[in-house]
Amino acid sequence: MKVVIVGAVAGGATVASQIRRLDSNAEITVYEKHRDMSFANCGLPYYIGETVESRDDIVMTTPNEFKAKRNIDVHTYHEVTKILPDEKKIEIYNHQTNTSMTDTYDYLILSPGARQIVPDIYKGHKHVLQLHNLEDTDNIENYIQEHHVKNVLVVGGGYISLEMAENLKHRGLNVTLVHRSEHFLKNMSKEITDSVKEVLMDNDVHLMLNDEVKQIEGKNITFKSGETKQFDMIVTALGLTPNSEFIDEAIQLNDEGYIKVNKYFETSDESIYALGDAIETFYRHIDQPATIALAWGTHRAASIIAHNITQKEKIAFKGLLGSNILKLFNFTYASTGLPESILEKMDHVTKVSQTQKHKAGYMPGSSKLSLVVYYDNKSRQILSASASGQHGIDKRIDIISTAMIGGLTIDDLTDIEVAYHPDYSSPKDIVNMIGYKAK
Amino acid sequence: MKVVIVGAVAGGATVASQIRRLDSNAEITVYEKHRDMSFANCGLPYYIGETVESRDDIVMTTPNEFKAKRNIDVHTYHEVTKILPDEKKIEIYNHQTNTSMTDTYDYLILSPGARQIVPDIYKGHKHVLQLHNLEDTDNIENYIQEHHVKNVLVVGGGYISLEMAENLKHRGLNVTLVHRSEHFLKNMSKEITDSVKEVLMDNDVHLMLNDEVKQIEGKNITFKSGETKQFDMIVTALGLTPNSEFIDEAIQLNDEGYIKVNKYFETSDESIYALGDAIETFYRHIDQPATIALAWGTHRAASIIAHNITQKEKIAFKGLLGSNILKLFNFTYASTGLPESILEKMDHVTKVSQTQKHKAGYMPGSSKLSLVVYYDNKSRQILSASASGQHGIDKRIDIISTAMIGGLTIDDLTDIEVAYHPDYSSPKDIVNMIGYKAK
Repeated sequence: MKVVIVGAVAGGATVASQIRRLDSNAEITVYEKHRDMSFANCGLPYYIGETVESRDDIVMTTPNEFKAKRNIDVHTYHEVTKILPDEKKIEIYNHQTNTSMTDTYDYLILSPGARQIVPDIYKGHKHVLQLHNLEDTDNIENYIQEHHVKNVLVVGGGYISLEMAENLKHRGLNVTLVHRSEHFLKNMSKEITDSVKEVLMDNDVHLMLNDEVKQIEGKNITFKSGETKQFDMIVTALGLTPNSEFIDEAIQLNDEGYIKVNKYFETSDESIYALGDAIETFYRHIDQPATIALAWGTHRAASIIAHNITQKEKIAFKGLLGSNILKLFNFTYASTGLPESILEKMDHVTKVSQTQKHKAGYMPGSSKLSLVVYYDNKSRQILSASASGQHGIDKRIDIISTAMIGGLTIDDLTDIEVAYHPDYSSPKDIVNMIGYKAK
Repeated sequence: MKVVIVGAVAGGATVASQIRRLDSNAEITVYEKHRDMSFANCGLPYYIGETVESRDDIVMTTPNEFKAKRNIDVHTYHEVTKILPDEKKIEIYNHQTNTSMTDTYDYLILSPGARQIVPDIYKGHKHVLQLHNLEDTDNIENYIQEHHVKNVLVVGGGYISLEMAENLKHRGLNVTLVHRSEHFLKNMSKEITDSVKEVLMDNDVHLMLNDEVKQIEGKNITFKSGETKQFDMIVTALGLTPNSEFIDEAIQLNDEGYIKVNKYFETSDESIYALGDAIETFYRHIDQPATIALAWGTHRAASIIAHNITQKEKIAFKGLLGSNILKLFNFTYASTGLPESILEKMDHVTKVSQTQKHKAGYMPGSSKLSLVVYYDNKSRQILSASASGQHGIDKRIDIISTAMIGGLTIDDLTDIEVAYHPDYSSPKDIVNMIGYKAK
């Protein structure tokens, strides 16, 4: 069996390893367009912020190591440019030799990832950088050091912009964040993310909300509001689009270019599978498509694909909830389930909110925890949950995700038997209180 | 409606409040045998350990405040000595006036709690103390101060003995712990609790395992092993027995004296309900009786009883998992589901274990986390789980409890979509890995 994989980061490298674990004979080749394979994506901001001290810690493996340990061939700087599904063939462009080549496959697995949609205004400036891969990380790190960067502008209101603001602050830079609206982290309930603004200001991040960059002239940045300020470096962290242009019409894409997969992670061509940030899969609990660029789903997909191409009986994926979490200075924000943009279009949606201490009030370090849960007031099904606070946010969101996976209703939350100790919860935990309040 | 409640601590005070919330007219009277009502039981060791600094923080309310705020009469030092169910009458002994009296009820709610089984050898010594209520806490606190206590012997291998060892250490005393066996925290998997010994030793608690107190002559304590040592104070934390002698044959008790209740928390007499540490209820997932002296179940019972005696439609309790958690210095131990003593007697039980970092290894402060899950290898039902480590223990046990409540199988654990961020978990969390390993 000859398996060819497009992309050597989280999805590609993981599915390659999983296939090797199940099939010691398969011929496995991975083509990666960029310089590096398998780095710790989610750790990159923390390397820039000097929380992760050693660069070695975020490099997971190298092509040489992958070959030696797992007998998997990884070719970096090799961009797959075309798929010929009828011939089970791909065309590849080698960016180091500037030559083209072809390869054939029994199974083709696509994990091409996504990239930022960067408006033209930001293009062609050496001090405008973005953080997407290890190469970008090195570029930012080098730029900060070589140009003695002091003042940074971060552009965006999502995960990466917030993590970058924190980490650039952590390494002692002056940080300004500009965002088109006042609503951060759009997957979460606005009620929960309203405090993001305060957390940023409390940590000395200068905010420019409802504003945009209008012009970049060297260090002089003019904003839509009319203000002009000087920045040594700009980091953009804007919306994503899938890297699926090379697919052309070889397999089916959705309107935004995401690769459509079924519950086996098969594309419209049964010899071609896909995973990672470039796919459209589906929500677990509601009949809705989902494009969720997060690690959990990618790792789950890697296991399922490896199983499905090596074993007789196929495993069906049951769908995503979109569970996600952000650390922002001493606060945490997390959510699971449908984003507000989908909830707003649905009928029978009711919201229940609760704020209480995350553990017994008499224990030192107890802090406020807020939880918002949306449910269907007819079926009583839980649709989504968002939480924020200083401690115990991950636990509450993971409990609710598990409840949703188990098909529990909003009323069943009264029955979640948390392990109680005054340092961890209350005998009536916030999860229970949401259940009591929804009656 | 006239409601009489026996016991004014967690169960009694909570059910009284919940009834008042639902029925502003009910006449509610609470009789409490001891000095105090409604204190934070679980916080008592931390008050002795000076982690909770103010005594006010562990006193939840007083009879005067309860009367003023909720119009509930609480009579302390009033011991209910007899129930006459046919007459719906009780007999009460007032320990302050040494007089007897009677009262009548429409509903009687029993929350008499449990007490330690203390062998005769420990009795009649002023320096042998125990921690059960606020009065005991005051006694220990006063004894330490008045007698300039330096060396303490803690007796037992369960929750309270471990919490006392930590807290006495925390306030600077020399602590020795004697325990009959080497197995601590018997509800949990031995594989998980084996490290308790090391944690205690690392924190300078002197251990005497497989040993017992044989003789107490003032400060000179002779052990079964033959050793004699000097201690200024002894704190016992031994097994519990329910305070149900006063019930005599008024309602049905089990062989160990626990009050039998049905799913509505009704006893064998339909006008008499019971909750708290003195009741026998049932496991949620397996048809087995459960006597679990923990706060979550007591608070849930209080809500259900209050509903059931004030509303037309009754709520049925769905049973306990016995979720429990202990903090021991910088470690946490937690479990949910059946204890090993029950698992050992069952067929088709398989164990799966996993140890991994609780979050991304490249983030500072990542530490080892161990999880053991028992399941039925025919039905694939999850039967119990135990976990230990420095961080994230409560989250993993609460996830597994929620999975059990949702009826998920051991295989479904691969699908638990944890909210992933390198500071909180791994893209394949330990909960997922247990599912993968059980295949």
